[in-house]
Amino acid sequence: MPLSQTIATRTFRKTADTFAAGAKTLEQKYFVSPEVFAEEQEKIFSKQWVLVGHQGELAKAGDYLVAEVARESLVIVRDKGGEVHGFYNVCRHRGTRLREDRNGRLSAIQCPYHAWTYGLDGRLLGAPHMDDVPGFDKADYSLHAVNLALWEGFIFVNLGDSPTPLEEWFAPLAGKFSHWNLAKLRSAKRIEYDVRANWKLMFENYSECYHCPGVHPMLSKVSPYDSAENDLAKGPFLGGFMSINKGRSLTMSGDACAFPVKEEEEEGEEEKQRVFYYSIFPNMLLSMHPEYVMVHQLWPQSPERTLILCDWFFHPEAFDRADFNPDDAIEFWDMTNRQDWHVCELSQQGIVSRVYEPGPYSSRESIPAAWDREYLRYMR
Amino acid sequence: MPLSQTIATRTFRKTADTFAAGAKTLEQKYFVSPEVFAEEQEKIFSKQWVLVGHQGELAKAGDYLVAEVARESLVIVRDKGGEVHGFYNVCRHRGTRLREDRNGRLSAIQCPYHAWTYGLDGRLLGAPHMDDVPGFDKADYSLHAVNLALWEGFIFVNLGDSPTPLEEWFAPLAGKFSHWNLAKLRSAKRIEYDVRANWKLMFENYSECYHCPGVHPMLSKVSPYDSAENDLAKGPFLGGFMSINKGRSLTMSGDACAFPVKEEEEEGEEEKQRVFYYSIFPNMLLSMHPEYVMVHQLWPQSPERTLILCDWFFHPEAFDRADFNPDDAIEFWDMTNRQDWHVCELSQQGIVSRVYEPGPYSSRESIPAAWDREYLRYMR
Amino acid sequence: MPLSQTIATRTFRKTADTFAAGAKTLEQKYFVSPEVFAEEQEKIFSKQWVLVGHQGELAKAGDYLVAEVARESLVIVRDKGGEVHGFYNVCRHRGTRLREDRNGRLSAIQCPYHAWTYGLDGRLLGAPHMDDVPGFDKADYSLHAVNLALWEGFIFVNLGDSPTPLEEWFAPLAGKFSHWNLAKLRSAKRIEYDVRANWKLMFENYSECYHCPGVHPMLSKVSPYDSAENDLAKGPFLGGFMSINKGRSLTMSGDACAFPVKEEEEEGEEEKQRVFYYSIFPNMLLSMHPEYVMVHQLWPQSPERTLILCDWFFHPEAFDRADFNPDDAIEFWDMTNRQDWHVCELSQQGIVSRVYEPGPYSSRESIPAAWDREYLRYMR
Repeated sequence: MPLSQTIATRTFRKTADTFAAGAKTLEQKYFVSPEVFAEEQEKIFSKQWVLVGHQGELAKAGDYLVAEVARESLVIVRDKGGEVHGFYNVCRHRGTRLREDRNGRLSAIQCPYHAWTYGLDGRLLGAPHMDDVPGFDKADYSLHAVNLALWEGFIFVNLGDSPTPLEEWFAPLAGKFSHWNLAKLRSAKRIEYDVRANWKLMFENYSECYHCPGVHPMLSKVSPYDSAENDLAKGPFLGGFMSINKGRSLTMSGDACAFPVKEEEEEGEEEKQRVFYYSIFPNMLLSMHPEYVMVHQLWPQSPERTLILCDWFFHPEAFDRADFNPDDAIEFWDMTNRQDWHVCELSQQGIVSRVYEPGPYSSRESIPAAWDREYLRYMR
Repeated sequence: MPLSQTIATRTFRKTADTFAAGAKTLEQKYFVSPEVFAEEQEKIFSKQWVLVGHQGELAKAGDYLVAEVARESLVIVRDKGGEVHGFYNVCRHRGTRLREDRNGRLSAIQCPYHAWTYGLDGRLLGAPHMDDVPGFDKADYSLHAVNLALWEGFIFVNLGDSPTPLEEWFAPLAGKFSHWNLAKLRSAKRIEYDVRANWKLMFENYSECYHCPGVHPMLSKVSPYDSAENDLAKGPFLGGFMSINKGRSLTMSGDACAFPVKEEEEEGEEEKQRVFYYSIFPNMLLSMHPEYVMVHQLWPQSPERTLILCDWFFHPEAFDRADFNPDDAIEFWDMTNRQDWHVCELSQQGIVSRVYEPGPYSSRESIPAAWDREYLRYMR
Repeated sequence: MPLSQTIATRTFRKTADTFAAGAKTLEQKYFVSPEVFAEEQEKIFSKQWVLVGHQGELAKAGDYLVAEVARESLVIVRDKGGEVHGFYNVCRHRGTRLREDRNGRLSAIQCPYHAWTYGLDGRLLGAPHMDDVPGFDKADYSLHAVNLALWEGFIFVNLGDSPTPLEEWFAPLAGKFSHWNLAKLRSAKRIEYDVRANWKLMFENYSECYHCPGVHPMLSKVSPYDSAENDLAKGPFLGGFMSINKGRSLTMSGDACAFPVKEEEEEGEEEKQRVFYYSIFPNMLLSMHPEYVMVHQLWPQSPERTLILCDWFFHPEAFDRADFNPDDAIEFWDMTNRQDWHVCELSQQGIVSRVYEPGPYSSRESIPAAWDREYLRYMR
């Protein structure tokens, strides 16, 4: 029996999702045009709040990470007072890249070329042989700062001039995830994926499980593809939850692999057997399982290429327990991620064709359709 | 004694070829300009009949091959009634590439993403969860078809809207090659070459043996470079034959390597000792030897790069005989091909220079000159 | 104690260099724009005298080297009368590249495609089958020549139509280096570097030692970074000398590694302990040490990539002496070169940022500032 038959004969629950009927996929230009890509980088990635990491990566004063946003390299660093700053990774003297590693710890930011030295707050502290340059004032040569704020422990930056404050942007989600302890989680592993597909295909892929029976046989066994219930169906934050079969977990073994993430007392049995999937516009995928949280960062590199960083976060107390087996979850999702990237790459290949035209979304693709609508709002 | 002297002192037979006197090579832009390349892809490779394979590759129902024409991926498949179809390799749902392998056998064409399923005739048979989409009709979502027809067993496609029928296009060659049994031959080997040169340089190279003494010492020993007689000297089909020395063959050993391709009774002794070389505009080179037929497909990738597929075809009865030694021919021409691609690459390198200007064709380069003229007709 | 402090507390000698106060680095476009790059190739590399090698590479008649200037491949060859010629590496027949190796020896220049043969003076000597082409005259098909002249044994070419004679261009340096025996030196080694930075960054890097304490700890120990004295501070030739500590040499061991380059009798003890650094616009760096001369050729490949050829020259009599240890110098400078290219690459990375803006040169960066001014003169 061919696969398509198998799917068609399963029972199908009508939900609010069906409002997407009539919606079609985006036009070709949004997936292939360098002009559209440049516009996205300008209107979205240079103006919106984008995820660059988690505060757990900057545990102590002087800890830094380097992120790349809209082709800009940024140094994100915790200062001695505990505050996190973001700076362009560019010396004010001759423009030299200051830090070329991905992360580390330092007491000051010193340029490797002529040793100009900046404090962790970005102020220029030392500049050899500049004293005799008439009119030179160190105060004029602080590092260029970038807007930075935290949400549930995640670090967001915004390259815009006067962005909406982050709390205002996240107001629709206020309190929604507070019992997940997101701010104190720690990443056990990061995997980077270099995907030959437009970044929007990954959002559209993440936002439906219509593809799960064919693409993810193992996932589909543990979490029924048609169990999805969406509670955010409009706007920049989209998603909901799916069921996990009783007594099972999204791991290779099918068993829970760590101490639970959430406060136990607050939830019922049913809620424990759920996985929550939310896309946070424009570059975050937040997947919350009972015992771990997976977070994807999406970094468009070109119309046809996207860098994806995927972290697996656990409760800080989970790490030292005997039942801690993070690889069981990491391996499961690494396999599942690669299945997804592969079909995204196949979509990219087909969409470049002269015969491609927007195709009809099914009733199970209401969230991709909602994501497309939201995306188009920013591109106007 | 330098090589040029050796050549100059050989006897030279005046033929009709000398009408090319005064002709010069093409202007630089035809070899380097991205605009000209785009124009070629549009006016020639998207409008003319181009070779994509041989029916022998699709022996049974469900056999398919994937070809790329003018950046379009196509699925060429034999249906259950024996008919060969060509489809764009693009799902009508979300544009996904349907088949990513080069060939195989299947009973239906199913999309790897959401399992939409098409028949071998392109009709949409199954599309899960689409029934409740108002107005959705499977009949509107057949695969996009491409024009396809056969000539002497070779499969040609045409991306144009309403092309000249293939029989009409090939009318000038009607019957000319019928005793060669081309339709029933089978390929023993395919080799791919990635050549850093404009595709037209390979046609110009194929169309003369003026270069043979210096470039192909082994070929020149068995088939005198000045024995060429052209019987097609104008239009999209160009070429003629050269002599093979008595008792020799174009193989590494110099001996015949297989059962003859042609019906024996029809030909005289002299014709048996000939190799026939024809270029079929715009992407086929057809080289017919007494015991094998070599066919090149030329696939321009950029102004400065061409993918070449080369097949060696033999009589179907040759394969099971004790005297079948295809490698003897394959190795001979693989060596000779590489010698040709190398000088084509050297030409590409020189032609980009600011001092390049069209140079004078000699009396032995009438066919390259005729090919250039034909090419320019399509570019008008 | 941080490095910047160490530098700031050292004594600083005021010199004529301080006139650069107020100068800033070049605007971003000069380092990243493809349009500026094309303009440089046209206005500078296609119009000025550029270094391509040294006469020592062409010791005998027929010796040749192949150089690439402004994307043009050139054959530089010594003829039987001892004269050195430069030709475009392009056959006059079908444009084929004539020589694809980097150097060698030959008695005539024969095209590998159709065996057209040219003398070492560029005249077409043989062209098979061209005699019966009406109006064909070998005299019309000599190789295209390029302007070529020698300065102190170094070979310069100029792609312009009627350039300033080389002697006139080098008039400001007449006699200045004559006691260095440059014309008769021989290269012991060439190293190629593929640097991901704009070519101008290498000139700016070469022209100051402000970066030496941090970037070149080993060099700084033997040759104090603040010992620089410039005697050419304006125009296309810039530089001066730095001190070498008494009894030391710029080698890994710190000992002299070869017989001295200069005539001994002419110099005093102090001059023996100096290294002379000159930049010769637009592509030569000339670094003269007591016992060896290092020469860099800079070849811009794109706005963000430069090929650098570095030769180490020694007195011809040095090679056969027991104390000849060229690797001691080569290894020292190969290490130092790589330190420089690395910071140049970091500068390139930072300069592409949207926040980059010209930064203030210090009092120790007067020569980079003078080089920038000279460069801008040619770009007007």
